[in-house]
Amino acid sequence: MRADFEIENKDGQARTGTVKLATGSFKTPCFMPVGTRGSVRHLSSLDLTELGAQVVLANTYHLMLRPGAEIVKNAGGIASFANWKGLTLTDSGGYQIFSLDPKIDAEGATFRSVYDGSYHKLTPETSAEIQADLGADIQMVLDICPALPAPEETIRESVEMTAAWGKRGRETFLNHDDAPSRQSQFGIVQGGVSQSLRIESAERTLETGFDGYAIGGLSVGEGRNEMLDSVSAVSELLPHDQPRYFMGLGDPVGLISVIERGIDMFDCVLPTRLARHGTVLTSEGRINIGNAKFAADDRPLDPGFPESPANHWSRSYLRHLMATDEPTGARILTLHNLAWLFNFVENIRKAINENKFNEFRKETLDIWA
Amino acid sequence: MRADFEIENKDGQARTGTVKLATGSFKTPCFMPVGTRGSVRHLSSLDLTELGAQVVLANTYHLMLRPGAEIVKNAGGIASFANWKGLTLTDSGGYQIFSLDPKIDAEGATFRSVYDGSYHKLTPETSAEIQADLGADIQMVLDICPALPAPEETIRESVEMTAAWGKRGRETFLNHDDAPSRQSQFGIVQGGVSQSLRIESAERTLETGFDGYAIGGLSVGEGRNEMLDSVSAVSELLPHDQPRYFMGLGDPVGLISVIERGIDMFDCVLPTRLARHGTVLTSEGRINIGNAKFAADDRPLDPGFPESPANHWSRSYLRHLMATDEPTGARILTLHNLAWLFNFVENIRKAINENKFNEFRKETLDIWA
Repeated sequence: MRADFEIENKDGQARTGTVKLATGSFKTPCFMPVGTRGSVRHLSSLDLTELGAQVVLANTYHLMLRPGAEIVKNAGGIASFANWKGLTLTDSGGYQIFSLDPKIDAEGATFRSVYDGSYHKLTPETSAEIQADLGADIQMVLDICPALPAPEETIRESVEMTAAWGKRGRETFLNHDDAPSRQSQFGIVQGGVSQSLRIESAERTLETGFDGYAIGGLSVGEGRNEMLDSVSAVSELLPHDQPRYFMGLGDPVGLISVIERGIDMFDCVLPTRLARHGTVLTSEGRINIGNAKFAADDRPLDPGFPESPANHWSRSYLRHLMATDEPTGARILTLHNLAWLFNFVENIRKAINENKFNEFRKETLDIWA
Repeated sequence: MRADFEIENKDGQARTGTVKLATGSFKTPCFMPVGTRGSVRHLSSLDLTELGAQVVLANTYHLMLRPGAEIVKNAGGIASFANWKGLTLTDSGGYQIFSLDPKIDAEGATFRSVYDGSYHKLTPETSAEIQADLGADIQMVLDICPALPAPEETIRESVEMTAAWGKRGRETFLNHDDAPSRQSQFGIVQGGVSQSLRIESAERTLETGFDGYAIGGLSVGEGRNEMLDSVSAVSELLPHDQPRYFMGLGDPVGLISVIERGIDMFDCVLPTRLARHGTVLTSEGRINIGNAKFAADDRPLDPGFPESPANHWSRSYLRHLMATDEPTGARILTLHNLAWLFNFVENIRKAINENKFNEFRKETLDIWA
């Protein structure tokens, strides 16, 4: 089902609105936390509800291996399996083509299982079918995401294969018994940091036609300016009345920079991974709680964010938990970083709605850039 | 301050009541979860409040090394440091004399830090002083806890040293500026599985005189019958109007067996450690969620315990989280096991109050023995 984007306000290219799916809707800009194997590390579905998460990601490659698509399907889909009342999106396995470097041929990608070493082939067709079983509200088409920098030839090839696989994945999805009535399928634009290849990939993705559009293959080794130029090159080519999703971005400067360029959705493991390593997002920038200067600091993590779920505990106590590897520490910092990022995105929403986006962007860059 | 035990009901030797401290009171029988380094693994102080925990343990040896007693003292004591609104008890470091095998002389025990290998001496005097800084509601005297089985000679020596250290620890505590006005100090009975040495140790501990009494040095390698005979030998020698604490016990059969013998308090890492390994306490006995038969089991962990905080999720989902090492799984099972054990102890309380202890004991043994 085509995902409609209903605009609320536009300030420059930055926009707020609502994405409407067959199964529910969510407000944008929207940061989606990552629950690769069906849970955001250290958190339960109830925690995510309390944090105000709208859409949670899960990963096709991991779930097809453990616990297997059949079990998730029989549980009523990934949201029901995890007892998550909000919306879900499954990545296609395309990210693992970047991170696990599988053997690729025209048909698909052959992976070794990270769990038991067994071989598994993922094709555009099987990825769409497995994602229909996983039952997320949004599924992604299987694409080819090369690490950057890469030779022009590699990028061209990835654009060609992404276009061909996109067609096949779309066809499989549209021919599926019931997936199109309950899921939206997003296409993915590749092209590295070549503006002409980005534009070509966008045109070919649009030609196939999807329910929403993602920009993939960035945040994978290129410089920040190249990344943003690549977003600029294609963002306005994508339909104004459908959602635009930048895959794999979660730092404040990155978020505000792609929102500036008309992006609505993004996901990243960054805020949760940082938390597990003691790095905390605060209204005065990043702090690392492991720093000795926090040993006797009885202030909350971020006095500028009094709503933080971590504010029940002092910096000193949280530092101690992290220093002694107590999982309670990682949990509390994970709650904080996600709450902080959701609040940050909410502040961007407000700024756009009040036509003060540029002001807020400058404040953000002052602290974070 | 002397801990008073106010009796509610007695059924055989099993008893219910309230322990009154300077700083608060708690109902018995009482299971105390263990937060060695200032947190119960995977849980926060808010979680413990929701679970209905009354008293939480912390460990002197670990806290004096990380973050150091000074930091805990300046935070207002361990409860305030962890923002825990309930009661706390610090073990003296005596358990580490069992588990870390330090060098012992008449003065005290010289440990190597598990964190950085540095040497630290803990004496009955410094243990009492450090525990005054850690500021728990109950502090324990430093004792000698030999692993069992041990030669008679070793046990006799541990009884002698425990008696001598008990006197010195008690004196230090009573001479402390303010500890006696805000803390209770418990003595510890040793004696291995020798009934005569147990009785002698009890008599010498009573001679010194403490605010409450613990039975230590059991659950350390001996058989269950020997353990229970050792409890029987001394339990009724301990004052009827002060609390009795069995150190280090957390399995249902063990709990009901020492409660049968007049014990009021117990602690153990067992329910939380089991949870981290996927072993679940249920009203039908232990299950291991890792078992393949749970892979597609959509029932809750324990249908006989509908109040479980884990019942939002299926066995199948929880098994998947444990199989993929997602910390969310360990957290949910930890919440469950503690909730289950608190509920179990509450059911024992009810049974004693209704003079149905023996009936409940038999039901428990049918399932667990």
